[in-house]
Amino acid sequence: MSKHNEMQAVAGGGLLDRRLFLKKGLSFSALALSADVLAAELDAPRPEWAQKPGTPFSNYGHPSRYEQKTIRWTMGNAMAAGNGVSWTPLQDLEGMITPSGLHFERHHNGVPQIDPAQHKLLIHGLVNQSLVFTMEDLQRYPMTSVLCFIECGGNSNAGWQTQPIQTQVGYFHGMASCSEWTGIPLRLLLNEAQIKGRAKWLIAEGADASLMNVSLPLDKALDDCILALYQNGERIRPENGYPLRLIVPGWEGVVNVKWLRRLHLTNQPTMARNETSKYTELMPSGKARQFTFVMEAKSLITQPSFGHKLKQPGLYQISGLAWSGRGKIAKVEVSADGGKTWAEAQLQEPVLSKCFTRFRIPWQWNGQQAILKSRAIDETGYVQPERDVLVKSQGQHGYFHYNAIVSWEVASNGSISHVYA
Amino acid sequence: MSKHNEMQAVAGGGLLDRRLFLKKGLSFSALALSADVLAAELDAPRPEWAQKPGTPFSNYGHPSRYEQKTIRWTMGNAMAAGNGVSWTPLQDLEGMITPSGLHFERHHNGVPQIDPAQHKLLIHGLVNQSLVFTMEDLQRYPMTSVLCFIECGGNSNAGWQTQPIQTQVGYFHGMASCSEWTGIPLRLLLNEAQIKGRAKWLIAEGADASLMNVSLPLDKALDDCILALYQNGERIRPENGYPLRLIVPGWEGVVNVKWLRRLHLTNQPTMARNETSKYTELMPSGKARQFTFVMEAKSLITQPSFGHKLKQPGLYQISGLAWSGRGKIAKVEVSADGGKTWAEAQLQEPVLSKCFTRFRIPWQWNGQQAILKSRAIDETGYVQPERDVLVKSQGQHGYFHYNAIVSWEVASNGSISHVYA
Repeated sequence: MSKHNEMQAVAGGGLLDRRLFLKKGLSFSALALSADVLAAELDAPRPEWAQKPGTPFSNYGHPSRYEQKTIRWTMGNAMAAGNGVSWTPLQDLEGMITPSGLHFERHHNGVPQIDPAQHKLLIHGLVNQSLVFTMEDLQRYPMTSVLCFIECGGNSNAGWQTQPIQTQVGYFHGMASCSEWTGIPLRLLLNEAQIKGRAKWLIAEGADASLMNVSLPLDKALDDCILALYQNGERIRPENGYPLRLIVPGWEGVVNVKWLRRLHLTNQPTMARNETSKYTELMPSGKARQFTFVMEAKSLITQPSFGHKLKQPGLYQISGLAWSGRGKIAKVEVSADGGKTWAEAQLQEPVLSKCFTRFRIPWQWNGQQAILKSRAIDETGYVQPERDVLVKSQGQHGYFHYNAIVSWEVASNGSISHVYA
Repeated sequence: MSKHNEMQAVAGGGLLDRRLFLKKGLSFSALALSADVLAAELDAPRPEWAQKPGTPFSNYGHPSRYEQKTIRWTMGNAMAAGNGVSWTPLQDLEGMITPSGLHFERHHNGVPQIDPAQHKLLIHGLVNQSLVFTMEDLQRYPMTSVLCFIECGGNSNAGWQTQPIQTQVGYFHGMASCSEWTGIPLRLLLNEAQIKGRAKWLIAEGADASLMNVSLPLDKALDDCILALYQNGERIRPENGYPLRLIVPGWEGVVNVKWLRRLHLTNQPTMARNETSKYTELMPSGKARQFTFVMEAKSLITQPSFGHKLKQPGLYQISGLAWSGRGKIAKVEVSADGGKTWAEAQLQEPVLSKCFTRFRIPWQWNGQQAILKSRAIDETGYVQPERDVLVKSQGQHGYFHYNAIVSWEVASNGSISHVYA
């Protein structure tokens, strides 16, 4: 294939073949140097930090002081201290891992500072043998690891508003993060407790002051759930559930109970706070959906996105994230002409089930107005819907499970806004 | 398969089928509760942290105060400030990711605190077009991600000593860590600079006060090297090369130049500090090896290992790490009888090229003396050698590239020591 052909658009608005960058060096924005300028560059005095010894070794590292703007944005409920959320700054991140310090938070009564030597896990209810475990006991159990996303059921809920919110992608969609979790397959402990035949639900309770609890169908508990002790290699951090968190891959964040202290096997759900009418979803039919656990396929472009500005026309790489609670991402398509035409993006390997998948595609921006979109298709064949389709099917009373296609408008001056298009 | 058969050993010393835990709940160490004790447990007062609101939301999270012992151990060179190493505490970690705060360090003149707005990358030498890039320029380039290990060529060098060192696994083998790195494929920038035909080597230089530099064959530079801006999702931290690090997957740590500022294309290596006789390896023949870049396959058991103590006989899970600079781990075998018999361990998916692979296998400890070993086999068929074989081939003057099988002796009281066996 000649370079000329490679640079031909594969869809409207200047989208190029996703394999383009695998083959060729291309000119972006480097400054080419004349011989004189090169000589001056080579002779220039060393920068200040290369003239004196740097800072000493550290027992535990932290981000550069020049990256202090890369933080979780937090929002507390003024009427209830410790109730609120923090968002992962997706617009500042790359790759698929979310660093643990930036994993989103959703708390109901603040972050308990739990002494692991005093914390216990109790399994009781419809079992032949009630069991209690110290954290030291659990350390001896067989472990497994899973790389998976956790997404709050209320993530992206600004999308239900009639006007598009103008804010950075993290503040809109950042109640989703992705880590490697390591711990004990839940079924091992449930089998050890010997489940009674009537048991159908598992009530999981956390040890924060709200004693946050949820109902989980037993089938899922016996499938791929993990009692996690480790996040991204080290022990889980307090705001993510230290010392023990229930990980429920692909299901809404609230069931991934933090600070886990009790598992109660029952034949009915418990109808906890998060299962009352406030947390159900009123459909256009007048009926409400309840126990909508699975997070459906979703994608969004993080580079470029609201708050970024393109300096000049030319070649760019569009980059974003896709995920599905039902399995692997099969394909991500990107449009640069508001959805009229689509091109397939490159998926970063490894593509894993119920895990963030980074997608990227080259784009030749001609300096004119453009509307960028991405849509995820998962291995079940589910296609991420356009916003009008989602709103039509779910109605105007939605608050949870917003997973519509996100549209960014690039203005001719390079600035980027959020549009419904 | 009946439970009886599943519990039959698959190798000496009580090693069990690697799939055992995928199938069954088994009894480990949980405390079974009588009805009275269960009632008391359910009625017990809430723990202190469940009685009052927890701590507020945080912009950036940190490990629990109860995990302050999980740190990098550091060792400075008393004669040269800023010269030394820190080790990753592998004995305290699980899964495959090393959290960035615990990634090992090897510095020659401390950690420069670099202002990214002032930092530049220069490409010059045998190119048709010298180029200079600001960090902002680089942000616009196409990126890719790789999950890979970095291991210092001097890692595990205590293994060359005639007596086995008695120390935790991190302090022995912890100059190896694993992250997701994201950045620009190096070949894109080299192609943009238009390499001259005579160019065979790339001299990479860092911006610390030692201006640390190394020679890298151009073939490798054009293969899978990355100019990384991100580590585990966020911008690289200062001690790992902020704002720009050269990632050379599978090759010894020293060529993964931190604080990268210059790439000089040449037709000869530069014979830098790390390429002089001090860093070559004297062979039994009297000749020395130089430019031994690839880190050969290696594995080690992290659970249990030196410093851990088994409380009682019974069922355990052995867990460890394996990696190879030549590609994927194909198989890890574990022995519980000092190498007389071996059983195949379970490999945690995904198994990735030049990346840490977590292996695990169930083990029924009978309470008697046992010697645990692991050996890695990579996709090229290379088998990690026993220590006596490595020493025989490499001689007694070794300092680098120690990758022999590690042996832990479990005493009848459950304590664990390092042995040559």
